[in-house]
Amino acid sequence: MTRIDELPLRDELRGKSPYGAPQLDVPVRLNTNENPYPLPEALVARIAERVAEAARDLNRYPDRDAVELRTALAAYLSRTGGHEVACANVWAANGSNEVLQQLLQTFGGPGRTAMGFEPSYSMHALISRGTGTGWLAGPRRDDFTIDVDAAVEAIAEHRPDVVFVCSPNNPTGTAVDAETVLRLYDAAQAAKPSMVVVDEAYGEFSHHPSLLPLLAGRPHLVVSRTMSKAFGAAGLRLGYLAADPAVVDAVQLVRLPYHLSSVTQATALAALEHTDTLLGYVERLKSERDRLVTELRAMGCEVTASDANFVQFGVFEDAHAAWQAILDRGVLVRDNGVPGRLRVTAGTPEENDAFLDAVRAVMKENR
Amino acid sequence: MTRIDELPLRDELRGKSPYGAPQLDVPVRLNTNENPYPLPEALVARIAERVAEAARDLNRYPDRDAVELRTALAAYLSRTGGHEVACANVWAANGSNEVLQQLLQTFGGPGRTAMGFEPSYSMHALISRGTGTGWLAGPRRDDFTIDVDAAVEAIAEHRPDVVFVCSPNNPTGTAVDAETVLRLYDAAQAAKPSMVVVDEAYGEFSHHPSLLPLLAGRPHLVVSRTMSKAFGAAGLRLGYLAADPAVVDAVQLVRLPYHLSSVTQATALAALEHTDTLLGYVERLKSERDRLVTELRAMGCEVTASDANFVQFGVFEDAHAAWQAILDRGVLVRDNGVPGRLRVTAGTPEENDAFLDAVRAVMKENR
Repeated sequence: MTRIDELPLRDELRGKSPYGAPQLDVPVRLNTNENPYPLPEALVARIAERVAEAARDLNRYPDRDAVELRTALAAYLSRTGGHEVACANVWAANGSNEVLQQLLQTFGGPGRTAMGFEPSYSMHALISRGTGTGWLAGPRRDDFTIDVDAAVEAIAEHRPDVVFVCSPNNPTGTAVDAETVLRLYDAAQAAKPSMVVVDEAYGEFSHHPSLLPLLAGRPHLVVSRTMSKAFGAAGLRLGYLAADPAVVDAVQLVRLPYHLSSVTQATALAALEHTDTLLGYVERLKSERDRLVTELRAMGCEVTASDANFVQFGVFEDAHAAWQAILDRGVLVRDNGVPGRLRVTAGTPEENDAFLDAVRAVMKENR
Repeated sequence: MTRIDELPLRDELRGKSPYGAPQLDVPVRLNTNENPYPLPEALVARIAERVAEAARDLNRYPDRDAVELRTALAAYLSRTGGHEVACANVWAANGSNEVLQQLLQTFGGPGRTAMGFEPSYSMHALISRGTGTGWLAGPRRDDFTIDVDAAVEAIAEHRPDVVFVCSPNNPTGTAVDAETVLRLYDAAQAAKPSMVVVDEAYGEFSHHPSLLPLLAGRPHLVVSRTMSKAFGAAGLRLGYLAADPAVVDAVQLVRLPYHLSSVTQATALAALEHTDTLLGYVERLKSERDRLVTELRAMGCEVTASDANFVQFGVFEDAHAAWQAILDRGVLVRDNGVPGRLRVTAGTPEENDAFLDAVRAVMKENR
């Protein structure tokens, strides 16, 4: 049998393991920020209908430019994001990971660098490396907010080509305010100019409005989104971005032709028809998320203020041991490697109760 | 309005246009090697059924490793390819373009090179460049076959990290025999060792058996395939590879997590259930392809022997003018930039008749 290290693979891949949360079979899985609510049956039926329609034409390549889907996404953003965008402002791909990869292939790549403020979404660094883009870890305060002065200084010093701002931030849940983004954007323009990518994967769960209106007059700003969380469609792999039309033109230079299948486009269009129902689930999850924060604090945990569909809590002397103790009680949460902290996804009320009971028991034992 | 060149995009992208055939609205489109036969209605119904099932779980991430699909693809290859493979030998992605991109991210990339024998599938060069891999254009004879001695010499001289062998070759239709592939593989191993990727996107249309059996005992060999052509599913974007399990492990270091959506996996599984029907269409297309070769030769064209679902024909003094003249008669073929030649996809008998009539008229006028 051939071992992986006997293959002529790139040096930087040697000894690495694939990214991904452990997939364990436990009663309550609150580890990957999935939406716990299955799609309503009416939407399932509509997906079957639209996919059947697409399947009748499946021998043909999909619409390479996904115009109908991008138009529907633009209408959704215009209605909910506080800023008018059109099809020409929107681009879609297989998950926001592919959107970010295309941005890095366009604006990053060999000889260029990207910066993020860690701890943050670890795929920003991984996709940067995967596209040959150097990675620069920028600073965050102990309370997980961005220290703007320190961040501006880091941008001026290292002059990254791409700056990632994740808001609400994963895995901490921290929202970034518009003023901070503007100062980072201005610093990035003064330094290079470089692209600033605001990752709003969890935007719909925030207490604050979207950062979308900042796009006006800022051609080097990009806002990325996903249907995985708010639309309850992690299985669909539909990410998208909003930006100046020139940015949309630019990523088309690197996108693989026909990257987005007809069935993906059809399914996403069906889900967008049911936006109001799905945003109703988001409201439920926001109130459950707030309950998690309140109850965890009540039992003495230190909880990071959250604007996402998950909550970062601690402080544990040994976070991995705490993760295991909670898992032993049938609840899977995530150890993202933030010292002393764990992350729990807001599930259904019943799942959240099970989680809170488990933490309560673990806290009691360790007292 | 911001122009694309005002953005801080990578230098090598400046002035470039996105890849893609012109999408024109004409009665007979024989330009992108699509399968002209729509999926049978029973399969459309089965797709709707399997996708509805997947949609009920769409709030969850897809199976990251696509085990059920890879197992079904392995069974298909084992049954039709003359070589037994298992799930561990197979990897799938969004189109064979993404498969090739993952291979280049793993085995190519900055500081490395890839070689193909041109004219060939132009995405090999484009995806190489997109992943920062240097591109080396290897030689082909005037009759579009590979001159093995010259190719072996080119490999020994340039020591590429990845060697592409497209068989049947796009856009010429030329099959490559096993002996040639073995000599190229041995040369590539002696030079580096490097990976050899046999692109069998059109494998099912060949007069010759698959090169899949060459995988035995050759851990640096990869065979890539697609469901776009033989399975009549260009809209599905499902490409796959067969190789040593170590290669499958290796590409998982660069694949984006959860890259393959649940709806894509469900649709592909449904199509694989209908393999025999779809391979029946392939037989019809092979005989139509052979008819195109015969009839084009009868009208005095020089036609490259074809093992694909398309035919390269000429010789025109001005291929682009001939392309336009055929288009003026309502038939869209492809000008791939091969001097004096055009490429036509085998369509339905009626489409092929329309095409042959158009060429006959154009030939007459130019006499």
